[in-house]
Amino acid sequence: MSKGERTRQTILDAAVDLASERGFEALSIGLLAERVGMSKSGLFAHFGSREELQIAAIANAAERFAELVFKPAMAAPRGLARLEAFFENWLSWVDRGGMQGGCPLQAAAHEFGCRPGPVRDAVVAHFRQLEQDLGRAVRLAVDSGELRADTDVGLLVFRLLGIVLAFYHRRDLMSHDDASADTRAAFAALLAASRRGSPDAAVAIDGASKA
Amino acid sequence: MSKGERTRQTILDAAVDLASERGFEALSIGLLAERVGMSKSGLFAHFGSREELQIAAIANAAERFAELVFKPAMAAPRGLARLEAFFENWLSWVDRGGMQGGCPLQAAAHEFGCRPGPVRDAVVAHFRQLEQDLGRAVRLAVDSGELRADTDVGLLVFRLLGIVLAFYHRRDLMSHDDASADTRAAFAALLAASRRGSPDAAVAIDGASKA
Repeated sequence: MSKGERTRQTILDAAVDLASERGFEALSIGLLAERVGMSKSGLFAHFGSREELQIAAIANAAERFAELVFKPAMAAPRGLARLEAFFENWLSWVDRGGMQGGCPLQAAAHEFGCRPGPVRDAVVAHFRQLEQDLGRAVRLAVDSGELRADTDVGLLVFRLLGIVLAFYHRRDLMSHDDASADTRAAFAALLAASRRGSPDAAVAIDGASKA
Repeated sequence: MSKGERTRQTILDAAVDLASERGFEALSIGLLAERVGMSKSGLFAHFGSREELQIAAIANAAERFAELVFKPAMAAPRGLARLEAFFENWLSWVDRGGMQGGCPLQAAAHEFGCRPGPVRDAVVAHFRQLEQDLGRAVRLAVDSGELRADTDVGLLVFRLLGIVLAFYHRRDLMSHDDASADTRAAFAALLAASRRGSPDAAVAIDGASKA
């Protein structure tokens, strides 16, 4: 890495940390310059505009996510073990990444969700990649025979995402002590219902109607 | 309502609409004054500070939520019917409230989740109320015998919240066509597993180990 590349990386790391605490809307060139101890003009030499900085910071956060969540999960054997590793890494990556606030990618999702443009496109690209990677992990657990052959992969990915979003909500906003206990219980219950040999929903409903 | 109260209400409605589109961080007295066609000093006569305005806007959004989600659900019979009405009202309240962006209370949850203070307290109060109301609706469905007697009420509330958060994510950020289809399928599957007469998770896991 050249000196210029190292400086750029230092700026982006600080930008992601700041966005974790305050969101991307609060990410001004001035505030960031103060954090990294550089002049505003020094920062502008690396990023021509606030938007360019936001896009690069989101890409940097997405790379950290891949390093801390996806890649180590790939070391686990295909199937449920890998899916479980993926999920556990996902729950802990914000802390392991040394970020003091919430998930910066989730912050970006909220801030740019309803504002079309290149920043939103960068956020959408990350979550599309996440859905693909998670979908592949689910499919391998179906192929290994651990999950039911009729598992709705897209629906399971959707429900896994919901559990993580509820975890962030409880941890960051509600300061619940049991945030990770409920989160792991929800994950275990969801997978139990999808395991090969478990009765499907139709049977469960039928059972209820006879009760 | 006096003229002053009506003006205050007009300002707060515009503030919530703006927060739905842009978040609360973007909610400046200047931008809001422009939206409602008042002078900045006229707005300051109603709200002494930006923080006071943010707190009042969050309270206003929470009242809209109660009017559009909780109160109409109370008209449904106790039990699953009321829980289903609660859920359906929750999915549609942003649209029915005429807001052009995402859920303003969810935006506030993200922006202030990691920033202690009176604004965050207002957001937490809303979500605590929501958890209580939803918990009561679940408990009545247990009491009516429709849900299993050993239902973990707190966990079910957590999982319902996760489904709605994933719905917002898909609808607002990912622009999925099937956002509400997956959402309703997730809700149906979750309730099916909690229905009286359905096998519990332990049985499902046991079944899987024998498969």
